Amino acid sequence: MDNALTVAGIRLGTAEAGIKYSSRRDLVIIEVAPEAQAAAVFTRNVFCAAPVTVAKKHLNRATPRYLVINTGNANAGTGRQGMIDAEATCQALAEHTGCRPEEVLPFSTGVIGEPLPITNLITGLPAALAALQPDGWEKAAHGIMTTDTRAKWASRQVLLDGHPITITGIAKGAGMICPDMATLLAFVATDARIDDKTTLQQILGDAMAESFNAITVDGDTSTNDACVLLATGASSIEIPATGERRKQLGLAVRDLCIELAQAIIRDGEGATKFITVQIEGGQNVAECQQVAYTIAHSPLVKTAFFASDPNWGRILAALGRAGVSNLDLERVAIYLDTVCIVRNGGRATDYTEAAGAHVMQRPEITLRIDLARGEATARIWTTDLSYDYVRINAEYRT
Amino acid sequence: MDNALTVAGIRLGTAEAGIKYSSRRDLVIIEVAPEAQAAAVFTRNVFCAAPVTVAKKHLNRATPRYLVINTGNANAGTGRQGMIDAEATCQALAEHTGCRPEEVLPFSTGVIGEPLPITNLITGLPAALAALQPDGWEKAAHGIMTTDTRAKWASRQVLLDGHPITITGIAKGAGMICPDMATLLAFVATDARIDDKTTLQQILGDAMAESFNAITVDGDTSTNDACVLLATGASSIEIPATGERRKQLGLAVRDLCIELAQAIIRDGEGATKFITVQIEGGQNVAECQQVAYTIAHSPLVKTAFFASDPNWGRILAALGRAGVSNLDLERVAIYLDTVCIVRNGGRATDYTEAAGAHVMQRPEITLRIDLARGEATARIWTTDLSYDYVRINAEYRT
Repeated sequence: MDNALTVAGIRLGTAEAGIKYSSRRDLVIIEVAPEAQAAAVFTRNVFCAAPVTVAKKHLNRATPRYLVINTGNANAGTGRQGMIDAEATCQALAEHTGCRPEEVLPFSTGVIGEPLPITNLITGLPAALAALQPDGWEKAAHGIMTTDTRAKWASRQVLLDGHPITITGIAKGAGMICPDMATLLAFVATDARIDDKTTLQQILGDAMAESFNAITVDGDTSTNDACVLLATGASSIEIPATGERRKQLGLAVRDLCIELAQAIIRDGEGATKFITVQIEGGQNVAECQQVAYTIAHSPLVKTAFFASDPNWGRILAALGRAGVSNLDLERVAIYLDTVCIVRNGGRATDYTEAAGAHVMQRPEITLRIDLARGEATARIWTTDLSYDYVRINAEYRT
Repeated sequence: MDNALTVAGIRLGTAEAGIKYSSRRDLVIIEVAPEAQAAAVFTRNVFCAAPVTVAKKHLNRATPRYLVINTGNANAGTGRQGMIDAEATCQALAEHTGCRPEEVLPFSTGVIGEPLPITNLITGLPAALAALQPDGWEKAAHGIMTTDTRAKWASRQVLLDGHPITITGIAKGAGMICPDMATLLAFVATDARIDDKTTLQQILGDAMAESFNAITVDGDTSTNDACVLLATGASSIEIPATGERRKQLGLAVRDLCIELAQAIIRDGEGATKFITVQIEGGQNVAECQQVAYTIAHSPLVKTAFFASDPNWGRILAALGRAGVSNLDLERVAIYLDTVCIVRNGGRATDYTEAAGAHVMQRPEITLRIDLARGEATARIWTTDLSYDYVRINAEYRT
C-alpha cells in the first residue's frame, strides 16, 4: 500500500477511548466539508445494529458533517438502550462541534450484545476532535480495526479533462462477515463535486456490486456492515449525471473499492489462499452468482483449497447442488487457473493430478467455470477454510 | 445399538473385493424376496452418480431382486464409462442369479472421479452371493462404511392388530454430505406386505422428511445419496393405503429412520456435539426450515458450539440473514435447552453468561427459536465445526 493521499474537505482524528481495551485507538471521527455530498449502503441483516438504524435515519434528514466510528463494541442486539446510546453519541458530538445531531452518522464495530460503554465513548470525543487532520487516513484505518491483522487503505488520482481528482478510502473486516466483530466498514472520499445525490448513490452502488458485495469469507452477513462514499467538492471539478467524467470517476471509485475488498479477503480469518471464483457462460448474472457463492461457501471446497488438493469432485458436487435448472453436464468445463480439470461431465482427458496439484500450491488461484449456456458472468473472491479459522472463531470471546 | 433383527424375505452377503483397500469388506449384496415391493429416494444433485441414474431407471422398469453396493469408489463424475460400469455390475449379478439386469439396483460410495475398478467388483460377486444370510445386517452395515467410525443399524418390532412386524435398516455417512465420500446410503426393510407402490413411496417420503432430510453436517449435498425401503410381504400382514395399520407402520419406519439419521450426525465428521435446531412459531414450514438450515450451516454458529461458547450474537445474526420477511425482532425468543438467551430483540434480562455456558458444555444441546408469527415448526439435527472437521477434509485424499 502506498501512502494514503489527503482529500481536500476531509479531516480525520483518532483517540483511545477505552471502549474495550485500554491503550488502543478505538475512536475515529471523520469531518466532512459543509459543501460535501454523501451516499451510503448498509447491511441487509434484519437484526441490524442500532447505529445502522440511526445512520440511515440521519442520512435521510441531513447531509453529514461528521462520521463517528468506534471499535470494540458493535452496539448490536442491544435493544432500546442501543438506540439511546447511538443517539447520545451523535448528540454529544453535535454539542462539541456546533452542528445538528442529524448531521452526525454513528458506526460501531466489535462484539455483539454487550452494552455500548457510552461514557467512555463520549469522554473520548474531544481528544479525537483535537486530533483532526487532513492526513489522518492511515491512523483512522488502524482505529477501525477489530480482528484485522493489517490496516487497509487505498488511494488513487484520476485526471478528469486534465484536472486531478483524488479518491482515498479505508476499510476494515477480517471476513466479509463475522457477526461477533460486526464486521465490514468502509469509508471512501473524493474531492470531486457531485451535487446530485442520486448520481453519487449510483456510483457507490455500481462499485459495491463488483467489490464489497463480491467477497465472502464465511457467508455470515454482519449486523453492522456499512460503506459510505463522500464527495467533498473541494476540487470544484463537477461530475454530471452522465458522460465521460461520470464514467471515469465511477471506474476509479470501483477500482479503489475492489482494492479495499480484496485487502479484506487477503486478511480473511485464517486465510492461507486468495481465491477468485469466476463463472462464465450463464444465462443471467443471478445464476452465475448463485453458483459462485455455493462453491465459495462449501466447507468441502474450502478445506480442499486449504489442503492444496485439486479435489475437483467437491467442486463438481457443489456446482450440482447450486440450483441451476437444466444445466447440461456434458457442456460444463472447469479450470484451475489455466488447467482444465473437468470437461464433458467428467475429468478432462488431458488432465493430470500433477498439473492440478501444481496450481493448488499457489497462494492466489482462479477457479473458472464455464456453464456454456449463455453470455452472463460473475466474479467473486473468497478464502480457504483452515484450522486457524476454527481457532479464531472458537477462541474469540474467551 | 441392539442386535439387528432379521427380516423374513431379506438376505445379505458381504465380501472383500479390493475396490480401494485390500482386506476390507467393501461389497454388499442384498437379496429381496420375489414378492417384495420397493420404494426409493435419491440425491437431487444435478451431478448424480452413474449408479443413481441406473438404479432410478431399473426401479421404473422392474421390482428389484438384488441390491449391490460397493464402497471405496462413488462411480461419480466418471462420464459414459461410469454408466457402462454400473450397467455391467447389474448384468454380471443377473447372470450369476438368473434374474434380469433391471431387477438389480447398483449403489456406490467412496471417492469421486476415479474409474470404478469394475473387474475387482465383478470378481467379488460370487463370494458375496455365497455369504447371503438372513442375519447379515450388521456385517452389511460394516461393508458400506467409508469415513464412518461406527457401523449404523437399527431394528424394531411393532404389533399391528396383534401381529408382530419387523423393521430393520442400515445406513452410512459421516456427514449428511461429503462429496468425496459420496455419502449417505440407507437400506430399510420390513416383512409387512405393501402391494401398493404409492403407499410404500409415501411411507418412505414421510419418514425421510423428518429423518434423513432433517440432518446436515456441512450443507454439501452428495452426488450418491440414496435411501431404499423394501417391504417383503413375508409376514403376510397387509398394509392398506389408509387406516390405523398404515399409520402405525409409517410411524415405526419414521422412528427407525430418525434413529439411523441421528446416528449419522453423532458420527459426523469431527463432531463433538449433537445439536438439535428447533424452530417454532413460523408462518409456514418452509420458513422454519430456512431459518434452521441458515443457523445449522453458519460456520460462526458451528465454531461457537465447538467452543462451548454461548455466543448468541452469532445466532441472532444468522437468524437476521435467513431471509424471513417482516420478522418482528421484538417478539423473537431464543433458548439454549431451557435457558432463554434472547427476548425483545436483545439479551434476556434474566440471562446470565454462566447459565448459557453451563448448557453449552453439554454434549447434546437443543437450540430453540420462537419466531412468534404463526404455528409452523421445523426440527433438524446438526454437528459443530471442529479442528477435526478441517483435518478430516483437508487430509482425506492424501
